[in-house]
Amino acid sequence: MPLDTIRARLQQRHLDALLVTQPENRRYLSGYTAHDSSIAESAGVLLISAKGAPLLLTDSRFALQAEREATGFTMRLYQRGLLALLKNLLPGLAIRRLGFEPHWMLYSTATALLKMTSTLNIEAAPVGGLIETLRRCKSAREIEHIQAAVLLNEQVFQTVFATLRPGQTERQVADRIEQTMRQMGSEGPAFETIVGAGPNGALPHAVPSDRPLRRGEPIVIDMGLRLNGYCSDMTRTVVLGKPDDKTKEIIRIVRQAQQAATKVIRGGCTGREADRAARQVINAAGYGKYFGHGLGHGVGLAVHEAPPLNRRNRGQLTPGMVVTVEPGIYLPDWGGVRLENMVVVKTSGCELLNQDTTFLDI
Amino acid sequence: MPLDTIRARLQQRHLDALLVTQPENRRYLSGYTAHDSSIAESAGVLLISAKGAPLLLTDSRFALQAEREATGFTMRLYQRGLLALLKNLLPGLAIRRLGFEPHWMLYSTATALLKMTSTLNIEAAPVGGLIETLRRCKSAREIEHIQAAVLLNEQVFQTVFATLRPGQTERQVADRIEQTMRQMGSEGPAFETIVGAGPNGALPHAVPSDRPLRRGEPIVIDMGLRLNGYCSDMTRTVVLGKPDDKTKEIIRIVRQAQQAATKVIRGGCTGREADRAARQVINAAGYGKYFGHGLGHGVGLAVHEAPPLNRRNRGQLTPGMVVTVEPGIYLPDWGGVRLENMVVVKTSGCELLNQDTTFLDI
Repeated sequence: MPLDTIRARLQQRHLDALLVTQPENRRYLSGYTAHDSSIAESAGVLLISAKGAPLLLTDSRFALQAEREATGFTMRLYQRGLLALLKNLLPGLAIRRLGFEPHWMLYSTATALLKMTSTLNIEAAPVGGLIETLRRCKSAREIEHIQAAVLLNEQVFQTVFATLRPGQTERQVADRIEQTMRQMGSEGPAFETIVGAGPNGALPHAVPSDRPLRRGEPIVIDMGLRLNGYCSDMTRTVVLGKPDDKTKEIIRIVRQAQQAATKVIRGGCTGREADRAARQVINAAGYGKYFGHGLGHGVGLAVHEAPPLNRRNRGQLTPGMVVTVEPGIYLPDWGGVRLENMVVVKTSGCELLNQDTTFLDI
Repeated sequence: MPLDTIRARLQQRHLDALLVTQPENRRYLSGYTAHDSSIAESAGVLLISAKGAPLLLTDSRFALQAEREATGFTMRLYQRGLLALLKNLLPGLAIRRLGFEPHWMLYSTATALLKMTSTLNIEAAPVGGLIETLRRCKSAREIEHIQAAVLLNEQVFQTVFATLRPGQTERQVADRIEQTMRQMGSEGPAFETIVGAGPNGALPHAVPSDRPLRRGEPIVIDMGLRLNGYCSDMTRTVVLGKPDDKTKEIIRIVRQAQQAATKVIRGGCTGREADRAARQVINAAGYGKYFGHGLGHGVGLAVHEAPPLNRRNRGQLTPGMVVTVEPGIYLPDWGGVRLENMVVVKTSGCELLNQDTTFLDI
């Protein structure tokens, strides 16, 4: 039960309660799926106290949904904003130290919260990453959801890949991918779909343009969807017609880098070691300076979450973490190749969540 | 020139520079259109100093786009994050007081910024709403963009409305609206499209469900798109087949409320007076307690921006503001009726941006 774990952590830190504002943390703990249109227009926050019942604070627009979904939570509605409700609520809850999430609260909101709590003789303290730390290791049920999101994403990819033709623009292809995601039953894209054809593929985060796809050039397609709240993230680099020798060579190097990393990922391996396994292959092939990003990142309710796999992360992976393995080579003016799969970290080794092998083994 | 205006305001407040983190403010001042995937993953920030050239600070992923779009700005790239770059940059710019936007900076980022600047003997000060205040009154060019977004939104509405049939679900209709927005050349929806059929329409912000549309019931469709960065926002309440007498009566009351408000909106009218004009009509008809939200809000680069039209806003409207006029009546278990148009405030009166009259005059 995550709630019991959180309560134990709160007591360790001498906190009487935690205000959970980060949307994925809120969903993780409560099951409440509402979407915040921005950090300034929240669909509600949780107040988890060390002793009393957990509360969900929201406004009347979301009351029905909150009641239906957050079954373990007691709902409190605010009419004149969160702070006014907290001001009424906190004194009755015997809270002396209240934690809040500094990485998901606006400076203006936090300063108003600090001012309000000080008038009540309550100490408000920033508590970073407490829930994110719990979210890193997935339960069996979460892994099922992620597996389903990965497989549906592959079906969407295959559906659109079968219709790719020279002359279609990057933007048309990206739009079609996102439409197909919705049609095939997902909650929509987990991030803005990347389609980078030819030279545009040399930008790791290319925004799809009106450039048409051409025969023979590498086309980077980076796509992910949300299903039951959980994300998938996959990149394939494909060619319409026959790839030339250079493209084939670079795809092979990137694929070998991916396989080398997949071989070392297991419980106890550090993020840095996983990154190095892939980087060594690309360095040895002479393309080291064209692999400018980290190897991967955690995926769950958020498409980018802990842990990062890069040169700086000396933390060890633990079983149940789900991470991407996505080396790439980006050559200015020529284009890019990136290959991205997702794996679950196991005690010995890791388990591949992907089945699609398009252009992985040419 | 907004930049000159901002510099004058900075000097009034004894600031040497302003860090612009809010994405619409960034676009408004620079023309840079990149999208932040979240407040924690920014596509860049502006540093406007009272004297030197304006700077755009971003990372290599966005370099090409920033250079192409933010033509009046000098680009500086960060590799190890914004704060590290600022730490190098600020001493050379003779900045002693630096403003930042507290309503669009995370508490964790702001505290790190305050700590870093204090080591440089620079005072960082929260400066709320400076750019938003400028954004309230639109230029002729901005109004053209908004007008185009309103008309395209109406075309999308008409295209989908022509295909509505009983049995289609709310979610299918909402998905089709958003697809059509993309197909007809917009940058996509400005917010999550609302389709609330029958009782679901009683929730002003209903999330589209799998409930099928039925003949004779009111169906609230609230939709908006983005075109050239500018938003549109329109609500129609439609009926498949013939509306019954109660539905017709409520549509007529809401429409009269909308017309009453449209009649009083002009430069010098307060947000509160506009709201009251609509509310009096609904009160007089006996439905006052079923109109639970404000009359409207500003629209521009953001779909919800200043000024609000509600009971609390005693500020005067000024010519060039663009606002929604959207009264509604929501009856639990029965459903809702909301009608929303957009107008430009003029010296005497206001100008309607909408042409569509579907179910407005039944």
